[in-house]
Amino acid sequence: MNITIITVGKLKENYLKEAVSEYSKRLSKYCKLEIIEVPDEKAPETMSQAEEESVKQKEGQAILKHIKNDTYVVALAIDGKMLSSEGFSDFINDLGIRGKSNIAFIIGGSLGLSYEVLRRADYKLSFSPMTFPHQLMRVILLEQIYRGYRIMKGEPYHK
Amino acid sequence: MNITIITVGKLKENYLKEAVSEYSKRLSKYCKLEIIEVPDEKAPETMSQAEEESVKQKEGQAILKHIKNDTYVVALAIDGKMLSSEGFSDFINDLGIRGKSNIAFIIGGSLGLSYEVLRRADYKLSFSPMTFPHQLMRVILLEQIYRGYRIMKGEPYHK
Repeated sequence: MNITIITVGKLKENYLKEAVSEYSKRLSKYCKLEIIEVPDEKAPETMSQAEEESVKQKEGQAILKHIKNDTYVVALAIDGKMLSSEGFSDFINDLGIRGKSNIAFIIGGSLGLSYEVLRRADYKLSFSPMTFPHQLMRVILLEQIYRGYRIMKGEPYHK
Repeated sequence: MNITIITVGKLKENYLKEAVSEYSKRLSKYCKLEIIEVPDEKAPETMSQAEEESVKQKEGQAILKHIKNDTYVVALAIDGKMLSSEGFSDFINDLGIRGKSNIAFIIGGSLGLSYEVLRRADYKLSFSPMTFPHQLMRVILLEQIYRGYRIMKGEPYHK
């Protein structure tokens, strides 16, 4: 299974880079992982709604360029469906059974995802009703995919 | 406000230590933060239910020793109540208004929290129906407390 994580902006903090690198290494045993960083648009604190929309649109267009027609797209969205770790593991497993070999998880930038990206998504997944920083979200998502595979294979995993 | 985070076990990964240190520094502007690590009991993969209970009990006793009578205790539990980031910010703010100046957040070890700790808790808070590693949970919790204060003060915060 090919798993692509499409994110906005480069990781700034060293500890996030290390965490991502650690989980990427662990995941390489279970799937082919690619992490794509599309450029983040400048988003100053005070923007009009139109300016915010424009930032999301531009980032969205850059995201969509990396999605192939046959890719199953999971958009991370706060109002998406919530799953347990076991449910998420089943979700990935079911995609494999249904022959979906390309899965993309999309994490929006600091303003979230554009309408076009959400429309392209096959599934909207929420990790929490809380907002997490999108850069930390990358680590949380990778860990959960790793956990999902461990559950699928009946291997022990930490809590 | 005095915020104590009681956790089980020492952080192993360097990137987690750095993340905790970064958010602790940022939080020091808003509250008096203390992080207490109680020792984790050995928990091999294959344990009977009685052995697991015994580990949770021992860790629970160590946790309870650090809780004063007047402390408002928030236990992190997967089946607890879920809040939005704004709701969590209101929650902390309300505790302050109600004169609760000592708040303890408790993150269990790899097997979770004992019955005694859950019984002592004034509030059970869930971050997600997903299970996160308890060591990473420390970072997620600190970030969310920091975000809560930023929301409370009307200061900008990243998503």
